[in-house]
Amino acid sequence: MSGMYLEDFAVGQAFGSARIRVDKERITTFAAEFDPQPFHLDEDAARQSIFGGLAASGWHTAALTMRLFVDSDFRPVGGIIGAGFDELRWPRPVRPGDQLQIETEVLEVRPSKSRPHQGLVKVRITTTNQHGEAVQVFVANIVVPRRPA
Amino acid sequence: MSGMYLEDFAVGQAFGSARIRVDKERITTFAAEFDPQPFHLDEDAARQSIFGGLAASGWHTAALTMRLFVDSDFRPVGGIIGAGFDELRWPRPVRPGDQLQIETEVLEVRPSKSRPHQGLVKVRITTTNQHGEAVQVFVANIVVPRRPA
Repeated sequence: MSGMYLEDFAVGQAFGSARIRVDKERITTFAAEFDPQPFHLDEDAARQSIFGGLAASGWHTAALTMRLFVDSDFRPVGGIIGAGFDELRWPRPVRPGDQLQIETEVLEVRPSKSRPHQGLVKVRITTTNQHGEAVQVFVANIVVPRRPA
Repeated sequence: MSGMYLEDFAVGQAFGSARIRVDKERITTFAAEFDPQPFHLDEDAARQSIFGGLAASGWHTAALTMRLFVDSDFRPVGGIIGAGFDELRWPRPVRPGDQLQIETEVLEVRPSKSRPHQGLVKVRITTTNQHGEAVQVFVANIVVPRRPA
């Protein structure tokens, strides 16, 4: 599949994704490397915490979301290059065995003023679990090349 | 070391960190799992890309930053719980062999109106490489308990 140029994106477009299962073992190994806090590492400690049970690090959820995004049909020419984020939040914990999926909505498409060969596509990527509950919402600006004249 | 309450934080406080080395092999294995794009996976492909050479996934940089943050002296009671982000950007690529370090600055400290037992500490966490160049800037709101009366 060939990549998309700025001109191929339009406000209101939506892109789905596959599903990915969050493995309990991977929650704890990811946390041991990057976010070693008791509520991401240990079932018993997690029960006493604000999360009330083992929960994935938000950065693990963010990384899994990126994987679903890269594998989706949102495919700019040159790859997915993030220029920055307007929002990133985790409204609900991700639990062992959760099945995550994303929906990407195009919020804005605009050519760059300073760089005439490219533009920005603003997207909202909502990550949901198998109950349809949002576990992550982020709004990102993606750098996308313009179609050569 | 015992944890910090909201009352222990003040605007202008700064917290440093240890350094962490970014391994080339880990750049590519992280990318293979979470962000499988050529410029994060393969030296030759990366040379042709916008990055001009192998670069870590931004989510890898974010996860390493979290590790440095968790290991730093910024230690709220109950752990580091992110309530959301106002900003996250990657001004410069992270390269194999880079040595990352963070500085955390307290921007705002405010009690919650709806939840009297807690508050929010807004911090700017700047991740720099061994040349002192910023590779990630993020502004986060951390949930911190108030000191019991």
